[in-house]
Amino acid sequence: MKEITGGICAPRGFLAGGIRCGIKPTSQKKDLAIICSLTPCTAAAMFTTNKVKAACVQVSQENIKDGKVRAVIVNSGNANACTGPQGLAAAKKMAEAAAGILQIDPSEVVVASTGVIGVPLPVNLIEKNIDTLKAELRDDVLGHEAALEAIMTTDIRKKEIAVEIELGGKTVRIGVMAKGSGMIHPNMEAAKQATMLAFATTDAAITVDALEACLQNAVKKSFNRVTVDGDTSTNDMIVVLANGKAENPIINSEQTAAYEVFSAALEFVCVTLARMVARDGEGATKLITVTVAGADCEQAAEALAMSVASSSLVKAACFGADANWGRVLCAMGYAGVDFFPDEASVVFKSRAGLVQVCKDGVTVPFDEKKAKEVLSEEEIEILIDLKGTSACISVWGCDLTYDYVKINGDYRS
Amino acid sequence: MKEITGGICAPRGFLAGGIRCGIKPTSQKKDLAIICSLTPCTAAAMFTTNKVKAACVQVSQENIKDGKVRAVIVNSGNANACTGPQGLAAAKKMAEAAAGILQIDPSEVVVASTGVIGVPLPVNLIEKNIDTLKAELRDDVLGHEAALEAIMTTDIRKKEIAVEIELGGKTVRIGVMAKGSGMIHPNMEAAKQATMLAFATTDAAITVDALEACLQNAVKKSFNRVTVDGDTSTNDMIVVLANGKAENPIINSEQTAAYEVFSAALEFVCVTLARMVARDGEGATKLITVTVAGADCEQAAEALAMSVASSSLVKAACFGADANWGRVLCAMGYAGVDFFPDEASVVFKSRAGLVQVCKDGVTVPFDEKKAKEVLSEEEIEILIDLKGTSACISVWGCDLTYDYVKINGDYRS
Repeated sequence: MKEITGGICAPRGFLAGGIRCGIKPTSQKKDLAIICSLTPCTAAAMFTTNKVKAACVQVSQENIKDGKVRAVIVNSGNANACTGPQGLAAAKKMAEAAAGILQIDPSEVVVASTGVIGVPLPVNLIEKNIDTLKAELRDDVLGHEAALEAIMTTDIRKKEIAVEIELGGKTVRIGVMAKGSGMIHPNMEAAKQATMLAFATTDAAITVDALEACLQNAVKKSFNRVTVDGDTSTNDMIVVLANGKAENPIINSEQTAAYEVFSAALEFVCVTLARMVARDGEGATKLITVTVAGADCEQAAEALAMSVASSSLVKAACFGADANWGRVLCAMGYAGVDFFPDEASVVFKSRAGLVQVCKDGVTVPFDEKKAKEVLSEEEIEILIDLKGTSACISVWGCDLTYDYVKINGDYRS
Repeated sequence: MKEITGGICAPRGFLAGGIRCGIKPTSQKKDLAIICSLTPCTAAAMFTTNKVKAACVQVSQENIKDGKVRAVIVNSGNANACTGPQGLAAAKKMAEAAAGILQIDPSEVVVASTGVIGVPLPVNLIEKNIDTLKAELRDDVLGHEAALEAIMTTDIRKKEIAVEIELGGKTVRIGVMAKGSGMIHPNMEAAKQATMLAFATTDAAITVDALEACLQNAVKKSFNRVTVDGDTSTNDMIVVLANGKAENPIINSEQTAAYEVFSAALEFVCVTLARMVARDGEGATKLITVTVAGADCEQAAEALAMSVASSSLVKAACFGADANWGRVLCAMGYAGVDFFPDEASVVFKSRAGLVQVCKDGVTVPFDEKKAKEVLSEEEIEILIDLKGTSACISVWGCDLTYDYVKINGDYRS
């Protein structure tokens, strides 16, 4: 596997574009994107588990049911959530507009939205500008860049990657882009239900069932292990489109070597973007990786790690580079799973080195200056060992800063 | 029922005192308190459900088992949590020191601690200064004030109340004090397992069983409905001591009018203090009351309300007085309970008036200027109606501010 450029336009046969249509009234930023395949695709998606589902989620869940989707239309600046029948109609109009310029059926379109909740979506702006969007469709990195810019809200960094793998003598490519900065604690379910949005393209030949299995595995180990603020959005969504243009022998079973290779590659790109989402959390100055080894089971390890990564007190301590490790144990204690606090060890780690702060549940003498250095780095890791049998898992979060409060104290202006 | 002065020294036969013994090395504030009854008491307590329990919690759980406790010794500045066998020994020494000056058995003492986790408690400072503490014991409001000051950490406001009720021709008094500002999301269980600390005294004559029942009801409807930052402490604790000095006919059954009156009074004082804890949340500028009416059941209503009060995004919006009501519905959506978003109405309310922002799950036109006025008040309420059958319940939280980040970015210095 090697990293390549081109993002979601790296796989053969995919086009993308992005424009400004005016949904963000006070901004000159792009706000409407489209991604599509020249030919039919197999597709898989996962959506938010929030009981309040945006209109786009409802429409997309319906359209993805048959595994046949070849385009995604996305607006930023408005979530089209809590907007009633009018919102549902608007989401359908978005699908129809995209279908119109691509000469496909609206049921082949996934619709995604991100932005403020509860404000009617000015879908007329999308309809009015859809031909401009069509004119901007490109199959190169510029198409990818324009689409990526158009899906961003409070995002500061661009989150994308593409890789190339070999399958049956053919070169297969996977590209993925994501947006997400606040209201991030994705908890997505298979083909059912972040405002984390992620869109992946691949020219692999793969069946819907195999693609769904790959996606579920990848999301479980990536986006569902990210938290910025503990708020699971009404709009979270990940979609992967596979158009088969690589002409590899079709991946049609989980019991094949090709499946393993493709699945590992999809997991790699999703984990890479999940880390980027955490690092770009609203106001964040640091990426925090929480790794738990030796829990009772993987599920327990994940619950413990997510509890630590979600703790406002741990997050604020990381912002201040304060080795207040007691907050780590405290957060594990209310995770709702059993573990033996007396067997816990905690190590803070970064490029600056590592410092053990807790052994067998109690403090060990440590160099405060060194700990401060370790925690002052931009990427820090909290390593927790519980001496049990489960494998080591990692989750990703960020620090809690003044800027998070600033950004969210007046989000709508 | 009427409010009276005197706090925990208002009930007859109770003494209290507080001094500085040096546990907070960089501060001149008091850090050691004692509360005791001149005569034996029946007692009930509830402790944190965190799997990581401070040494004081472990010792106190043991001592309260027989329902006979007549003193509470409390230090601030150090949680004595994650401190191993040494910490357990230190907690026992605290009980012994208190017992020594009061000439009672150490098993009649409850021990409470609050402060940084994972640092060995310098119990020698407590032992060295215990006679000074004895000399400061008083049965008047000054004893109450000194003890209250000594249990505070990042608290800015003093949280206390006392009331008087009539039972069987006798005047019965209840006094309570609490500390708690950060790491506040109490989840306490009966006689088992908040760093929310609350201490109540009463001169009522009441059996242990009746006292426990009263306390469980009161805590369920008060402290367990408060959140500042979602972090459930390793040290949360509430203790009530009843010495019978009021000479009322003993309350020995839940099926009596006297029980009802006493229980309602205890609930009132606990709810009053729970609101004070939320208002005094670290960095808070506002008390936020979230009220849910018409859920499927009380448990669902509580889960929905706590999810809204815990949401960083809702809290930041309240800080900014931004009527971003979509975040309210979003937080309800991930509360993990069923409800019909399409039937939800949301109203923002304060002294400045009320503004409906959502009806039947969708936006209603509202005056943004008025909404800003309503949300700019120091006490605001988010009223949610789901049109179901359950009773109306309220929970309490606070806004998320720059100062929360500041306080917790460098708590240990």
